[in-house]
Amino acid sequence: MKLYFITSNKNKVIEAKKKLGPLGFNIIQEDLQVPEIQADTLEEVALFSAKWAELRARKPFFLEDSGFFVDSLNGFPGVYSAYVFKTLGYMGILRLMEGVDNRDARFVAVIVYNDGKEMKMFRGDVLGTVTQEPKGEGGFGYDPIFIPKGSSRTFAEMDTAEKGSFSHRGKALENMEKWLKNTTK
Amino acid sequence: MKLYFITSNKNKVIEAKKKLGPLGFNIIQEDLQVPEIQADTLEEVALFSAKWAELRARKPFFLEDSGFFVDSLNGFPGVYSAYVFKTLGYMGILRLMEGVDNRDARFVAVIVYNDGKEMKMFRGDVLGTVTQEPKGEGGFGYDPIFIPKGSSRTFAEMDTAEKGSFSHRGKALENMEKWLKNTTK
Repeated sequence: MKLYFITSNKNKVIEAKKKLGPLGFNIIQEDLQVPEIQADTLEEVALFSAKWAELRARKPFFLEDSGFFVDSLNGFPGVYSAYVFKTLGYMGILRLMEGVDNRDARFVAVIVYNDGKEMKMFRGDVLGTVTQEPKGEGGFGYDPIFIPKGSSRTFAEMDTAEKGSFSHRGKALENMEKWLKNTTK
Repeated sequence: MKLYFITSNKNKVIEAKKKLGPLGFNIIQEDLQVPEIQADTLEEVALFSAKWAELRARKPFFLEDSGFFVDSLNGFPGVYSAYVFKTLGYMGILRLMEGVDNRDARFVAVIVYNDGKEMKMFRGDVLGTVTQEPKGEGGFGYDPIFIPKGSSRTFAEMDTAEKGSFSHRGKALENMEKWLKNTTK
């Protein structure tokens, strides 16, 4: 089954191919510039994008939005994680959390699937905690300050395979895959 | 001349009426929910909204987007000022600026005018500095931590008239008004 993945990020395409290719899905990148709206939740952002793309993309397609949510900061940087990383970096997050006991945070990915008749949403969460200081050289974005539940190391201290085993995007992809298997059976 | 102002904020309508009413403009509120995209500049956000609204709003219309930009934070919170205020408050800004010498900041408003044939953009800036601690009880948003150039008091310490004399939105409205006067002459 052909599935168009709307994204300009080749690494995301590689991750989706690895995950869904062996299960019989042919993932094809659709490099379309889709607007992302300002909203409080990833779900709202992704839904708007998927509606916008409905008239413009090959189908069936899916697209994805993700973010880093810190509990004690009321979900900041959340939907705007990329912009906040660009302006404040992860050191900004650590600064905002100086002296804060509650370090709970999560990475979230939301996928919207759209075949022109049906729209369906899938989500993946990785729970964890924010470190007191950055650790590790790998990864990107907030990886050096995030330790996923079940590990004692940050994402930036893991290799791609280990980090991938925790992936929020991977979980969302799995949820989509389960649903597709059931509905196309 | 009739001018539709797309906004759900009645206070903005009152400000526009005060400013442009005496100059012969009849400002009518158009309460339309217009999507705002994620982008690096207010200009990009407002342009997208104005294009989206072109098919849906009465004309000629204008809409406005504004934000608070801190130099030493690479323009943060900028386009996402409302979201950042909701999650971190102005105390978050002060926290990020602890020990930072460069306190320069600005409020910016961008207006896009669209009559169906022509789109035109206008901007208003208020330069100033970020305080070391909040001062004053009035205003809203970042007002307690912002002192405009030419004053020694924060926006939150001023009454509406005094604050209005510095208004970024007022400046953008004036710029639009000048242009309209010239083109409709």
